Parts: sequence; C-alpha cells; structure tokens
Amino acid sequence: MQKDGKHTVVIVGYGGMGSYHAKLIKDNGKFEVIGTYDTDTARGAVSEQDGYRAYGSYDEVLSDGAVEIVLIATPNDVHKDIAVRALAAGKHVICEKPVTMSVDEFKEMMAAAQQAQRVLMVHQNRRWDDDFLIIKQMYEQGTIGDIFRIESRVHGANGIPGDWRHLEAHGGGMLLDWGVHLLDQLIFMIDSKITSLSSRLSFILGDEVDDGFEAVLQFENGISALVEVGTTNFITLPRWYVKGTEGTGVIEDWSMTGRIVTRNHGAERVEPTPIQAGAGLTKTMAPPSETATITGALPEPYRQPSSFYDNFAAVLAGTAEPIVKNEEVLRVMNLIEVIFEAGRTGETMKDFDLYA
Amino acid sequence: MQKDGKHTVVIVGYGGMGSYHAKLIKDNGKFEVIGTYDTDTARGAVSEQDGYRAYGSYDEVLSDGAVEIVLIATPNDVHKDIAVRALAAGKHVICEKPVTMSVDEFKEMMAAAQQAQRVLMVHQNRRWDDDFLIIKQMYEQGTIGDIFRIESRVHGANGIPGDWRHLEAHGGGMLLDWGVHLLDQLIFMIDSKITSLSSRLSFILGDEVDDGFEAVLQFENGISALVEVGTTNFITLPRWYVKGTEGTGVIEDWSMTGRIVTRNHGAERVEPTPIQAGAGLTKTMAPPSETATITGALPEPYRQPSSFYDNFAAVLAGTAEPIVKNEEVLRVMNLIEVIFEAGRTGETMKDFDLYA
Repeated sequence: MQKDGKHTVVIVGYGGMGSYHAKLIKDNGKFEVIGTYDTDTARGAVSEQDGYRAYGSYDEVLSDGAVEIVLIATPNDVHKDIAVRALAAGKHVICEKPVTMSVDEFKEMMAAAQQAQRVLMVHQNRRWDDDFLIIKQMYEQGTIGDIFRIESRVHGANGIPGDWRHLEAHGGGMLLDWGVHLLDQLIFMIDSKITSLSSRLSFILGDEVDDGFEAVLQFENGISALVEVGTTNFITLPRWYVKGTEGTGVIEDWSMTGRIVTRNHGAERVEPTPIQAGAGLTKTMAPPSETATITGALPEPYRQPSSFYDNFAAVLAGTAEPIVKNEEVLRVMNLIEVIFEAGRTGETMKDFDLYA
Repeated sequence: MQKDGKHTVVIVGYGGMGSYHAKLIKDNGKFEVIGTYDTDTARGAVSEQDGYRAYGSYDEVLSDGAVEIVLIATPNDVHKDIAVRALAAGKHVICEKPVTMSVDEFKEMMAAAQQAQRVLMVHQNRRWDDDFLIIKQMYEQGTIGDIFRIESRVHGANGIPGDWRHLEAHGGGMLLDWGVHLLDQLIFMIDSKITSLSSRLSFILGDEVDDGFEAVLQFENGISALVEVGTTNFITLPRWYVKGTEGTGVIEDWSMTGRIVTRNHGAERVEPTPIQAGAGLTKTMAPPSETATITGALPEPYRQPSSFYDNFAAVLAGTAEPIVKNEEVLRVMNLIEVIFEAGRTGETMKDFDLYA
C-alpha cells in the first residue's frame, strides 16, 4: 500500500486543517497524499486544483486498496464514525483533535483499532510547540527550582471563529478546541494524578457553546495549574506564567518573548525599600532589592525525539512507541468531560482522573 | 476633649503603621496626636523623639479625659480587647485592618461601639487607592462595556515581611494582611451577593500562615472575580485585569501604567489573519485586524467624597455616613473565614455571604 516507498494518505475533510496537513505531509517526505474526500464538492474542486484526486464518496476511499492511512480533519462530531470505518477497512488513522466529543466515543475508536490491529494516533501537535517545550525543559531541569504553579493561558479577541465551531452538535466551543491542547500539554509534562478540579465556562458571546473557560487543577505531587482560554480578551495575559521554589518564568506569546527571574543566592540579603502604593506604603510588595534577583533568558526547549509524522512512520514500522499515546488522549477527554460538569454544577470535582 | 479645635488621638502600637498614621494625621489637620502607647518601651522613646508623649500604660490612656480617639495599630490579635476597652471608656476608635481575626470578635467590637454610642471605623485605606478608583470608575461608567470579569492581583517576591506576621496567633499571613484590602475593594465596588467561592492557600515558604492565596468569587449579577496575593512572584502579573463586553482594561502597577482596548464599532469587520503559533496555525488567537480595536488611556479615577480622616471627622460631627461601614467590614471578615475554610477543605462554598 506504499507508493514510491512513501505511506499513502487520504485526507477526509479538506478544509483549513485538511489542507494544512497536506502541506505538513509534503514537508515531511515519508508520506504522500494520494487524494481527499470532502462532503462539500467545492472543496473537492480545490483539492484537484491542489493536485490531489477528489474521491467521490467515503466508500470509494475505504475500498481503495492503495490507501494506507486515513487522516481525519472533519468537524468533531463525525470523527468517530469515519475512524471506526477506516480501521475496519484496514486503514491506519490519524485523527485531528479533539479526537471525539466524549470518552465513550473514543473508547469505541480505541477498540476498533485494537480489533483491526491498526495504528490510531491523534494529532496533538501542540506537544511540539516551542513555548510548551521550554516550560517542559524548565520543569524537568529545575531551572527555577521545583515548579509548584503553572498558568497556561491562550487569549484572543476574535470570538469563536468559523461556522460549525459555534454549534454544540458539531463539538464546537473553546474547551474542545483549545482546551484539549492545553490539558494535553499539562498531562504530558506532569506525571502525577489530578486530585481535584474546579472550572468556570464563559458564555459571554451568546453562543450555545463556551467561548472560553478556566480550570484549576490540583495535582497529587503538589503542583497546581490554571488552564484558561478566552476569546474576548482585548489585552492578553502571558501564554505561560510559572512559579518555582527559586524563581518565576514567563513566556509572553508564540514569539517566545520571555524571561526567568531567580533568587540570587550569592548576594547578601538586603531588605527591600518600602514603596508608596496607592493610599498606603508596602514593603511586602516592593520590588526586591537590586542584588536580590537575577534575570535570565529562557532555556532552550526540550527536544522531542521526532516530529509527529516521523513518529507516526516509526510506529507503523514498529520501531517506536507513539509520542501521543491513546491512554493519554483518553485521560484528556475525561478531563474535558469533568471540566464541563464542574462548570455546570459549580462543584469542586474529585476522584475522576484516569491517571494510571 | 478637643484641643485647639482638633480631635485628640492616641496611637496604640507605635510601629511602622502607627508612625505612618501620625504623619497622615499631621497632614490632615483636623486631628492631633497627643500621645502614643506601645508595650515596647523602645518605641516609647521613639515616640518622644517624634514629639509625642509616651503613655506608661494603656490604663493611663483610657483614664485620660483629654483623649478623644484611640487609634489601634498593634498586631491583629489584640485589636479587639484594646478597642472594646477604649469604647467602654468613652473613646472613639480607629482600627487598623484586618479589624480582628474573626467575625465573632468583630461583632463584639461592634456591640461595644453600639452600647457606648461611640464611633468605630476601620482604616480600609485602600478604598482610596487610585488604581482601585480607576477600576471603580470603569465599572460605574461602562468604559469597557459591562464588566463581567475582574482579576485583582498583588504580587511580591519578598516573602512575608516583619515578625508577628509569620505567626498564626498574632493573625499573620497574607489573606489577613493583603487579602482583606482586595476583598474590601471588591465588595465596596460590586453591589451584589457572592453566590459561590473557591480558594487555594499557598504555604510554599514553610510558614505556619499562608504566604499567599487565590480566591475565585462568583457574584449573583454575573461578575466573576479572581483575588490573588503572592509573595513568591519574581515576575509580577498586572495589578488589575478586567474584561467587559466592549473591551479589556489593565493596570500594571501602582505607577498607574495601563490601558484600555475596546472594540471599534466604527470599522468594517475585517477577519484576522491567521498566525503561526508553535506547531500550528491559529486564526482564533491571532491579533485582531488593525482597525478592529481602539487603544485608549485609563479614565480618571472615581473621586471619594472625602479622605478617610475628613470622613471620620464628619462622622464624629454627625454630618456624614462612614465611607467604610462596619457591616461591610463584617462581610469581608466573613469572606476571609470562608476563604480559609474553602482552602482547607478544597470545597466550593455556597450560601455564606453576609450581603444585605
């Protein structure tokens, strides 16, 4: 089922994300897109202009023995059916995030992959984001001491974009769209059970789905994390704000502007000078004395052993474990369900985490 | 009991805060400090150097008919006894914050004031902070539309300062020290019941009292507020971050650096251009198109009708209501107790607010 030594891929759902994958695949070199399928025939025409055969039906894709991999980039509500049918037809599957709209749906997909003995991998591509990998490096190397607080925010001011992302039936909303990335990054980095969780969903734009959310997660190892997504933030807070026992780190945005400020153990302790703060004085909240801290650059990011597509090829060849493991994806889907419930009930949730 | 037409004050507890009050009183002009009392005789010597008689005992203060007002600036655990005795002796009382360590203690103080028909006012001076008053103005005037989210943070990196503030028995810790201000500002600004609350206390420095905390408050009118105090933040997040239906406002620090960014209704809608963000593209989180928003300066602050001391004088004269009402102080003390409990239990608290 390979072509010129390359793994053959059909992209199902040839919208913005589908065509982005076509570009990623071209850049990678180990795969080749041999066609696309989209229920919108206009997208079929675009596909042909782009040089990719437009299949006339999904059945046609499944019955084509030349197709080795089905890549799913459709709205979220149809991921499961498309994936289960592809796996049953003997295809490997790459699926966009969020993989499904519920834990149960994803379990069905995992079972189908197991039964068909085919590879199913979810494109949690933000495990490869440099901003995240810098924080992961700080976490692992103790750059600012033991990290005990992580704040991971993504702020925009454009509301919810696109069409189906406004609709609950299609799995719209920002928790499923961006939340899935931020939660995935956290559980990939922190190897500890989440013991409690509270959340708040935002519906300020009047959509039927959340236009943002915040969740506070407490890990068993003592770390607390805030995960926040907003689409009504005309001024943004930093992408990452992390506190360790020896300092604080910040990454402002994807341009990687940021810094770390750590305690200067070499300096003699000098009391800070009280400052006028509004109608009062404060020494507590005054800047530390000049010699008390050291400002430094962000460390180099942690390096993933391979790219998403290189890893997928290695998994197909049986030479590597998936970097994105389905058990982790399942754990994140469960977290999302719990965050929805915590937001709806206003309760603090406990004893829910699928941490193994 | 006046002297040269001025109200006479004895300051009990002549430490940093006590001597700061002496300066405030001198600047005000309607009051005169006629002495101090401190259990530390070294502070008595400083008082005399500063030109203020050092009373030899608290009984001596109480039995001195020339004393009209007792100002309490001691550690928190002795506020109540000093106040109750002063009121019983016919003195008016100004008390530093936090007024007491519990709701019950403050109820005793309020009852003593009621019985003695004397004025008891708590020095919640941060109702006069310009940064807060700018936010209050934005809240009242709809500068960024209807405000639905308020984040009020005070970040320092000096740990807990001083001596008794490290000790639980004296009412140390940051929730009682700074939290009381931030909560007081919120309830002074937002006239709505708090329907739920969750919190997390920080003990990262190994003190027996909290070295910081965060609390999330949900108001009945739809506003959610985050209140956060940290003493291990080597990089600070903005003092105020507020979101409204028409924009976002930020005040970085007490220097009043800040701005508001609002939706530009005059401009035609232009879709934002997707940006590369880590390993993916995003249109949702791309900056709004250039014409989509307007950046402006912070508004002028709301103006309090009078200063704390002018208001106190007017209340003594019976010509004004207190700006800091004891019912509000009681509500904040109750909030603090609930935040301690929420932090200890990890539960979301409901049905607790003393909002009348």
